Amino acid sequence: MPLLPADIIAQLTSLLGANAVIGEGAQMGTYLNEPRRRFHTPAAAIALPGSVAQVQAIARWANESGVGLIPQGGNTGLVGAQVPLRGDEVIVSLARLDAIRSIDIAAGTMTAEAGVILENAHRAAEAQGAMFPLWLASQGSARVGGVLSSNAGGVNVLAYGNARELTIGVEAVLADGRLYQGLNSLKKDNTGYDLKDLLVGAEGTLGIITAATLKIFPRPEDYETTLVNIAGPEAALELFQLLRERLGGRLNAFEIIPDIGLELQLRHGMLDRDPTAGSSPWYALIEITRMAGTAPGALQAAVETGFERELIANAVFAESLADRTRMWSFREQMSEVQSKEGASIKHDVSVPIAAIPQLIAEGSAAVERLVPGIRPVPFGHMGDGNIHFNFSQPVGADGKTFMAEWDEKVHEAIYEVVLRLGGSVSAEHGIGQLKVALLRQVKDPVALEMMGSIKRALDPRGILNPGKMLG
Amino acid sequence: MPLLPADIIAQLTSLLGANAVIGEGAQMGTYLNEPRRRFHTPAAAIALPGSVAQVQAIARWANESGVGLIPQGGNTGLVGAQVPLRGDEVIVSLARLDAIRSIDIAAGTMTAEAGVILENAHRAAEAQGAMFPLWLASQGSARVGGVLSSNAGGVNVLAYGNARELTIGVEAVLADGRLYQGLNSLKKDNTGYDLKDLLVGAEGTLGIITAATLKIFPRPEDYETTLVNIAGPEAALELFQLLRERLGGRLNAFEIIPDIGLELQLRHGMLDRDPTAGSSPWYALIEITRMAGTAPGALQAAVETGFERELIANAVFAESLADRTRMWSFREQMSEVQSKEGASIKHDVSVPIAAIPQLIAEGSAAVERLVPGIRPVPFGHMGDGNIHFNFSQPVGADGKTFMAEWDEKVHEAIYEVVLRLGGSVSAEHGIGQLKVALLRQVKDPVALEMMGSIKRALDPRGILNPGKMLG
Repeated sequence: MPLLPADIIAQLTSLLGANAVIGEGAQMGTYLNEPRRRFHTPAAAIALPGSVAQVQAIARWANESGVGLIPQGGNTGLVGAQVPLRGDEVIVSLARLDAIRSIDIAAGTMTAEAGVILENAHRAAEAQGAMFPLWLASQGSARVGGVLSSNAGGVNVLAYGNARELTIGVEAVLADGRLYQGLNSLKKDNTGYDLKDLLVGAEGTLGIITAATLKIFPRPEDYETTLVNIAGPEAALELFQLLRERLGGRLNAFEIIPDIGLELQLRHGMLDRDPTAGSSPWYALIEITRMAGTAPGALQAAVETGFERELIANAVFAESLADRTRMWSFREQMSEVQSKEGASIKHDVSVPIAAIPQLIAEGSAAVERLVPGIRPVPFGHMGDGNIHFNFSQPVGADGKTFMAEWDEKVHEAIYEVVLRLGGSVSAEHGIGQLKVALLRQVKDPVALEMMGSIKRALDPRGILNPGKMLG
Repeated sequence: MPLLPADIIAQLTSLLGANAVIGEGAQMGTYLNEPRRRFHTPAAAIALPGSVAQVQAIARWANESGVGLIPQGGNTGLVGAQVPLRGDEVIVSLARLDAIRSIDIAAGTMTAEAGVILENAHRAAEAQGAMFPLWLASQGSARVGGVLSSNAGGVNVLAYGNARELTIGVEAVLADGRLYQGLNSLKKDNTGYDLKDLLVGAEGTLGIITAATLKIFPRPEDYETTLVNIAGPEAALELFQLLRERLGGRLNAFEIIPDIGLELQLRHGMLDRDPTAGSSPWYALIEITRMAGTAPGALQAAVETGFERELIANAVFAESLADRTRMWSFREQMSEVQSKEGASIKHDVSVPIAAIPQLIAEGSAAVERLVPGIRPVPFGHMGDGNIHFNFSQPVGADGKTFMAEWDEKVHEAIYEVVLRLGGSVSAEHGIGQLKVALLRQVKDPVALEMMGSIKRALDPRGILNPGKMLG
């Protein structure tokens, strides 16, 4: 028989102490209200363990009692993995496990607990003269455990990889309370299955990550950053190939933004001045790293070749930190500016890089045929084949009516193009509860069966983030 | 009741045709004799499927009949994963699945079948002006499926990662014959568990990899290569940190070799002339990539800083392809030269990079105390924290007696140091059958339980490479 909410709160309190349990709905807002306010299911309680041993105790208890546990970091996820689905789950916030356990500059590693806020991980590395290169718009509140569980990407994946590639080892509490001790500082270790990568990106359905050993890097001496004017995605693709050939692993970011992004940000006063070299149908924000002792100018030289090949119409180079910050703000504010323009329908999709022009052309055309006046705002990580393919409501439309009528249909139209091009319906943000049904439609059925087998093997009673990802 | 060998051969023949089955022991040599001639168990038969559908048919049949299957690539593995353990298994050679299915330069991907010889994968990429940067001493016979199943490393891990990091997606036949279709050309895809990384490095115990999508890269315009004279591992560590700060991702290789390596190769006539700048206790082979349009000289400038800081005593830069080849031969021949010096006891270990000097000092001292006259020959991938910590027999000793008396004891001494330093007892070569007992002693017991749970979930009848890795 399932426990009553009052029993859950009482038993958790006896496990953790009263200060570590929130049982009042009114006090749960921080843990329930996710960024897009799309999910509104209550939780039975919030548990705030203060040690790994307490996380183990919660799991042992939940596994015996059949209570669902939802691991939560900074509650910044966009697909509802970190908030309730049924209403009887306990949210396990890792926020109090926020120690940087160690930093080893020589080894190039940092061991951080799950509750460390991403920005604090950045600061800890910087304090030692190093860099942890996972940068997200939400880094001021996202926490390491959530970043890893969602295999977050961000703006530096091109040079440094996503969360999975930046993680060397993890420590995690399993469904029955056992502790998997997989922390290490080894670049190479072929002693068994890759359990680290199974736990990273599993959205808390296979274990509760409590700490991780992360890769840190020497800080570049400097960055070279430019905003170039380009005709469109085809030119961007050709330019990207050219820069990759000339700059290799130094190419840090290659982001594309359509003119509507600039227009809206200027209109809403989000930029103190135009960061570009003048009006253009599209812009590319390109950045490279420069290591100590290396001559500057490599980006300028490569961009000149882009001019010669007529891929670039104009360019402006950052000449100060303020310039660079403004260029990056222009990119980072793309999501926020859309919220100022009313409702928008969003897709976080990827395709093989060469198919990006086709994705943008066919996706935009299909949706514009469907919804007259809709405004395509595709932008993002060209270099990763990952476009945030968003659509703002027609000017003057009613947001609610627009979403009710078009959300599903626009999704269908975009996913049809994405799948036809061999792409992914969730490049960065994951599955959570938002895309469970979609995943079952589009994923290789054998892959889904394998996932189910692994889930049942590691969490036979189904207490870890029930219903998420696998349904 | 287990099938008789004659039944196995008859049933396989009816599945695949007579040309695709070897049942005569005398014809099995190629498939049974692995490089170190350490394992001598026969196989029931060799199956040579010519298509993925045939691999599926073999798995279905084996799963129903309870016959163990051993997936095999080029039979170059060093831990016996690819050869029989019990004597009643069928070796499934993937050699006939040797097509390059596609190359997509714009996407930076190549899809190769499991039987493609690594060197042919290199050639296929080069023919399109690209590069597949996984270089191994055995690349002339190692095949893609085995390279992935053992998560091979090689000399370029520093800049490009090991086999796992170079693989985007895999296709694999599961124990019951189902086909996991995980090929894709996506840099980012957060739609479910990381099954690719679970199959890579699983030594064929979870599925038979039949094809993989691999990352390919723009070819550097050139390499800059140097052999520097250094005092020892401490100076090497400091030099490595310096170069990493100045060269970032361009640092392609940082390999260390003790003077005995040069002495032996010159004595055995394996080098046409001395590739170094003169006698030194240790050498470091350092290489960086230079992309098109980038000025040469970055390595020279960084090495000069190494001189100024008194980390380098002398240096010679490759001025021709012949020079570069000679430098690399010096590194690549380190294993071979030891076989010319009689018996040797080998360890493929890793530690956090900063602990390498301690590993080499304490490991050498411990073993020299144990075996008077033994000759330590530690060399390899300093930049990955991965040392091939080998010991040549004392001059004039009898090889067989030496191995019988010391093999186990030297292993114990080295693994004691490695584990105390937080290292791995198998950095590159894997577990196979050689290190099964060792793994059970040294691995986190929860990790072993998780591996067992996953194995039983995906291969409940235990037909895939039985007894390997997990025991």
